[in-house]
Amino acid sequence: MYGKLLRRVREEAPLVQCLTNYVAMDLSANALLALGASPAMVHAREEAAEMAGLAAAVVLNIGTLSPPWVEAMHGAAAVARARDRPVVLDPVAAGATAYRRETSAALLETGVDIVRGNASEIRALVGGGATGRGVDATDPVEAALEAASQLAGSTGAVVATTGSRDLLTDGGRVLEVRGGHVIMTRVTAIGCALSSLVGAFAAVTDDRVAATTAALATMKICGRKASFAGGPGSFRTALLDALYALEPDELDQPGVVAELAAP
Amino acid sequence: MYGKLLRRVREEAPLVQCLTNYVAMDLSANALLALGASPAMVHAREEAAEMAGLAAAVVLNIGTLSPPWVEAMHGAAAVARARDRPVVLDPVAAGATAYRRETSAALLETGVDIVRGNASEIRALVGGGATGRGVDATDPVEAALEAASQLAGSTGAVVATTGSRDLLTDGGRVLEVRGGHVIMTRVTAIGCALSSLVGAFAAVTDDRVAATTAALATMKICGRKASFAGGPGSFRTALLDALYALEPDELDQPGVVAELAAP
Amino acid sequence: MYGKLLRRVREEAPLVQCLTNYVAMDLSANALLALGASPAMVHAREEAAEMAGLAAAVVLNIGTLSPPWVEAMHGAAAVARARDRPVVLDPVAAGATAYRRETSAALLETGVDIVRGNASEIRALVGGGATGRGVDATDPVEAALEAASQLAGSTGAVVATTGSRDLLTDGGRVLEVRGGHVIMTRVTAIGCALSSLVGAFAAVTDDRVAATTAALATMKICGRKASFAGGPGSFRTALLDALYALEPDELDQPGVVAELAAP
Repeated sequence: MYGKLLRRVREEAPLVQCLTNYVAMDLSANALLALGASPAMVHAREEAAEMAGLAAAVVLNIGTLSPPWVEAMHGAAAVARARDRPVVLDPVAAGATAYRRETSAALLETGVDIVRGNASEIRALVGGGATGRGVDATDPVEAALEAASQLAGSTGAVVATTGSRDLLTDGGRVLEVRGGHVIMTRVTAIGCALSSLVGAFAAVTDDRVAATTAALATMKICGRKASFAGGPGSFRTALLDALYALEPDELDQPGVVAELAAP
Repeated sequence: MYGKLLRRVREEAPLVQCLTNYVAMDLSANALLALGASPAMVHAREEAAEMAGLAAAVVLNIGTLSPPWVEAMHGAAAVARARDRPVVLDPVAAGATAYRRETSAALLETGVDIVRGNASEIRALVGGGATGRGVDATDPVEAALEAASQLAGSTGAVVATTGSRDLLTDGGRVLEVRGGHVIMTRVTAIGCALSSLVGAFAAVTDDRVAATTAALATMKICGRKASFAGGPGSFRTALLDALYALEPDELDQPGVVAELAAP
Repeated sequence: MYGKLLRRVREEAPLVQCLTNYVAMDLSANALLALGASPAMVHAREEAAEMAGLAAAVVLNIGTLSPPWVEAMHGAAAVARARDRPVVLDPVAAGATAYRRETSAALLETGVDIVRGNASEIRALVGGGATGRGVDATDPVEAALEAASQLAGSTGAVVATTGSRDLLTDGGRVLEVRGGHVIMTRVTAIGCALSSLVGAFAAVTDDRVAATTAALATMKICGRKASFAGGPGSFRTALLDALYALEPDELDQPGVVAELAAP
């Protein structure tokens, strides 16, 4: 079923508008292109909402905020919601500063369809967990499951907590996605790029759980493959090659996705 | 004759000031360095015009605009014009939003020597074509030739429309440049990097047509070579290596540049 | 002794906050991660000072300035100083524009622990040298030694001048670091990434000279190794792999660091 979604991404090449951080723009755009989607890295207050009128999905990433970008995020998200297009939130280092906590809370309040973060970030969104000194996950994924369920319940969003293994929930179902490699923690913006891929899959189906699962499985499988490269520099190159070469059927192979709990 | 220009770029290492988008800065700077030019990614309102006083060419790219950048673009372009240095415009996704249309029009009005875009972007500059949902070319190159001629006529600029094949015109002559590979559409900022290379070549000759042709031929040849890499990640790496290794004589090999029409 | 510092970086994974330029963010973050440190690319006026309260070192890089960033730099540096955490300054193209000269001077005045630049940049900081048209060093390293000593004397900072060979001084001692390869001048942001690594080492020891030397030796050794790649694209990938694979003992091998003068 996930392979079918990848086929649709490649057929439709959905326009995924990313209002993302400076560090992640390049890798996110390249990951979307490698997969078969079409990136639009458009964040200016003067045009973000207008561009959202053309976009098939909108991805909000708070990695490097400033007031005009926050305003643009709200504008683009409002247009996406009005057009019934998915909005994805990546709460980078949400617990690190008051500005991030407030911005995340305000974006969640106005409505987000899918949240993708590490355990520290997901816990920060519900007011708990480590203080989240940066973008590193200092909490294990499991520790965030309660926070993820609570967040899904209060916002209606699908919440994906990613790390050495990924867990996602819509408040009822819980799915686990396995794969990847520890070297992925040594390359910047992998998580941000993953959030962009969530946007690409969410653009081609109304099933938010399936879209998020497909994106997570894509990164886990391609990350595992790319880990045979010789180091983090080679890994990044190999990851893009793997996204490009990924066969839809690989997403449905056994051992990648497991349903842990049904509602 | 194009090989001679590449030799000059490597001898003079012209300082190419780029006011370009966040996604393209890294690849543009690296492409310029790999070729043998010297990049200056300086766009702040507080210093862009002053830096243009040192630059051998100025490249304006509207990929991620904001009001201070637009102001800096006008300031840098004015200094370049006053110093008789070339100004290159890359109208990224010009048709996508009103902000881009207005900014492109204003920059064209104040004077640009060379325009480099895909077919949708070139058509958008004369008020036609697809709406240009993003940076992808949704129009074939040929469809933009009339728009390119019209634009060249009204502005006096050399206009290059790039895609599966490239066409450039100064309103009279029409040249075609062949090569490249479809995988180039799966890597972000290749077109933007090409516009920077146009700036490097335009910095070492007053012949705008020759400079633009040399830059297009450079990308077509290096792109073809790099396409033997395994995917879009490897391609990007191989492209920079190819720019570095390019022999001047390769630019004058048969089958790359063809004159389609003379005035 | 330098190997011990690398071991400490990998054990402590210090949080290095970088207020750096758009071109260098990606490579700097990846270099820090590859080495074993933890990057925080946080520069917004709204949160930079708060983040500095969590950071083990703060790196200021003036490559792409704007007024809000300059304000954030002062805020983050003040917090770092109050917490006795090291502040590193990378005066990119300091001589090119008045804005850069003024910003560098103001940052130096408020207190910086380590300065890392090329010869033209270091000379510009004391009001001499080439005008520094861009980020390229147009002066030889040796020509900047007097300026470096003067700067170290007037500011109390360790001053590292890097190029074909590196010299660093605290005003009394002078050390030379050898290695690297000329292809490093064909890849953007290598110097900026090096300044980030200086921050990582300075985060784990109070010995500013040893920290700076260890960072310079790290880049010289890894740059030499990566130079066996086929061109500047491959070099960048190989450099990150080399940082990841670097053995602590390699930093103490003979022929890398030499003491030229003791106070």
